[in-house]
Amino acid sequence: MALSDLPADDLARLESRLAAEYDTLADKGLALDLTRGKPSPEQLDLSEGLLSLPGEGDHLAGKTDVRNYGGGAGLPELRSIIAELLGVETGRVIAQDNASLSIMYDLLVFSVLFGTPDSQRPWKDEPALRWLCPVPGYDRHFSITQALGIEMIPVPLGPTGPDMDEVERLVAADPSIKGIWCVPIFANPTGAVYDDHTVSRLARMATAAPDFRVVWDNAYVVHTLTEDFPKVPDVDALAAEAGHPNRFWQVCSTSKITFAGAGVSFLSSSSANLDWYLGHTSVRTIGPNKVNQLAHARFFGDAEGVRAHMLRHREVIAPKFEAATAALTRRLGEYDVARWTRPEGGYFIDLEVVDGTATETVRLAKEVGVALTPAGSAYPYGQDPDDRHIRLAPTLPPLAEVETAMDVVGLCALLAACRAALAG
Amino acid sequence: MALSDLPADDLARLESRLAAEYDTLADKGLALDLTRGKPSPEQLDLSEGLLSLPGEGDHLAGKTDVRNYGGGAGLPELRSIIAELLGVETGRVIAQDNASLSIMYDLLVFSVLFGTPDSQRPWKDEPALRWLCPVPGYDRHFSITQALGIEMIPVPLGPTGPDMDEVERLVAADPSIKGIWCVPIFANPTGAVYDDHTVSRLARMATAAPDFRVVWDNAYVVHTLTEDFPKVPDVDALAAEAGHPNRFWQVCSTSKITFAGAGVSFLSSSSANLDWYLGHTSVRTIGPNKVNQLAHARFFGDAEGVRAHMLRHREVIAPKFEAATAALTRRLGEYDVARWTRPEGGYFIDLEVVDGTATETVRLAKEVGVALTPAGSAYPYGQDPDDRHIRLAPTLPPLAEVETAMDVVGLCALLAACRAALAG
Repeated sequence: MALSDLPADDLARLESRLAAEYDTLADKGLALDLTRGKPSPEQLDLSEGLLSLPGEGDHLAGKTDVRNYGGGAGLPELRSIIAELLGVETGRVIAQDNASLSIMYDLLVFSVLFGTPDSQRPWKDEPALRWLCPVPGYDRHFSITQALGIEMIPVPLGPTGPDMDEVERLVAADPSIKGIWCVPIFANPTGAVYDDHTVSRLARMATAAPDFRVVWDNAYVVHTLTEDFPKVPDVDALAAEAGHPNRFWQVCSTSKITFAGAGVSFLSSSSANLDWYLGHTSVRTIGPNKVNQLAHARFFGDAEGVRAHMLRHREVIAPKFEAATAALTRRLGEYDVARWTRPEGGYFIDLEVVDGTATETVRLAKEVGVALTPAGSAYPYGQDPDDRHIRLAPTLPPLAEVETAMDVVGLCALLAACRAALAG
Repeated sequence: MALSDLPADDLARLESRLAAEYDTLADKGLALDLTRGKPSPEQLDLSEGLLSLPGEGDHLAGKTDVRNYGGGAGLPELRSIIAELLGVETGRVIAQDNASLSIMYDLLVFSVLFGTPDSQRPWKDEPALRWLCPVPGYDRHFSITQALGIEMIPVPLGPTGPDMDEVERLVAADPSIKGIWCVPIFANPTGAVYDDHTVSRLARMATAAPDFRVVWDNAYVVHTLTEDFPKVPDVDALAAEAGHPNRFWQVCSTSKITFAGAGVSFLSSSSANLDWYLGHTSVRTIGPNKVNQLAHARFFGDAEGVRAHMLRHREVIAPKFEAATAALTRRLGEYDVARWTRPEGGYFIDLEVVDGTATETVRLAKEVGVALTPAGSAYPYGQDPDDRHIRLAPTLPPLAEVETAMDVVGLCALLAACRAALAG
């Protein structure tokens, strides 16, 4: 029976029973962590061979000695693999160090300091800077815009993308809105996949700012939890057709394909955008780590090798997602007090609890040893206006711990819901 | 006999003889490159073992799984080795990706966008920004300040450091002067080594800007061409004693120790500076490539391992420097028309030709297939006011090619000198 339909006495009894069960948890000394989207050691083991690659004697990529300086755009051997996965020409993808986060940071920093190829002036000289943030979204995106003093405007994210009526209305009216954060495939944290219509509208829409940019963070482009891989739209082609050839900055990385702590990152965009980025980057570095790029090219072999590798990840983590949603269903299903996503890829589950109880749920869980991302972290400035969303990351702990932790989360969410109902 | 003492007839005969010899070079189809300070393949081979490191099964550094996210300051295992070489505590060194150039770029970008811990405002909000550039100096340093719109002021660099009277006078008077580029050991391109008195004055001097910074680019800290390693001053201790604890940003990297194209970079500074840098960097990245850091730690073993490795580099490149100076001496010695440095470390020789003939010397060399760095490249905005300095980089070509190329350089410099004397 839905919690809202329970008679007051039943509600009080339920609270009492849950509170008693919760109290027993404190004695169990749990120390479980669902905070960050980190791969598990078992996933990292899938790439253990990389630690010996490229291997002694293997330091040439074509005529390029990967041990020496140069080659700012990265190795074609690896770029071609990623280009195939993104469905674009090799020349339209460059390979850089670290992770896509650092590319995104630099893209925005270069725009602030120098302006984009379509800018009338450096963004720092604009009277105001604003940015659209589909919510819930990725906290590290929001940290970049916040650090750069760019005012963030939340727009609702649905299962097929942001509220495009709202996006189109805002960008058409306000030239200070310079861009939007997007995770188009298996979005962090809801798992949303942008549909064709949304992608087309983002490519076509009229913007008051001539230098409006879509940061197209394809962090989970091959990170399926099913047996199928998502279709990857050629956003540059769509944008170019619509007369906005430089609209998209697409990024991805190997962070959650091989080693999260030692990845290669990629930028795919128009020639003008790539030239602009490489021009500024050439002042910062003589070139990226080509040894790591060659190692990755050798490890993958080809695009099919990447896909086969991702299916091995799936074998490890899909059961964790299943266990997580099963635990939530067991605890919460009958009471109609929460919703959660059942993503077909990516790294997260978005749990929506009773309005005003997300912070309390996270607190309750923490008290008994289950660490969750702070409520609100999927919102700009950490402010979820409804105090409703909790981002759950089930990949890192072992399966049994995921089950335990998710059961605790469900219990805490239900307990908080009961107390809110009793107080209301 | 000095060229200036030659009778006019002898001078004309010399020019004529050199011109004839020069003309024969065109037919030889030379293609030699002394432009950049790149290690040779033979040097890179010294680190070939790195290509298989850390190796399968070796992914833990203490309790840290280097394959996963985190650890923004880098691995203590590698930091401790570099800290010993710099003569500081491990906690005062952090390890980052790529090369020290990227750290320097980010340090200046963070200062421009956000200000340093000692700044009253972000540097972008200052009415003017100026920077001292000891000359001749490193072109990539100058590219950073130029890109950021910081006006560069050249100050003469002598064999023991910059003209400190001039430096002290300038920084005391002008609060818009925010810093100075320094390569204190085996400077690029002269090989100068700052003496204790210079270092002490840089640490102690009064600056009108409260947030003045010395970029202490110790790129060649262990890059000896002799059997001895240079003494490394603890600049932070000197500066702290003088009441300027945050004055120095010291950087170095493994670029010319292991692989120039796949290095680890290091920043050593005060706690306040490191915290400030890491705070901003944490928005840009979740952490550096720890796999590469562990590989380097395994490869070196300890600080003594680095020194032993550098002596193997020396065996390869010291003969090239000797051959280079011998060739210059043969060609130019008797005429007193040029001077060149005989560095005890680093990667370059600075050749000073007759005033007004550097550009012509480079042109003549290029015409017969010997590529040199453009004259003026060791000066801000590429402008050597005397058109006198040519940076020579003898490490990359094989020994025989270095001898040939340097002989051509000497011939071209002498030919240009003759023609200048005849024209004068």
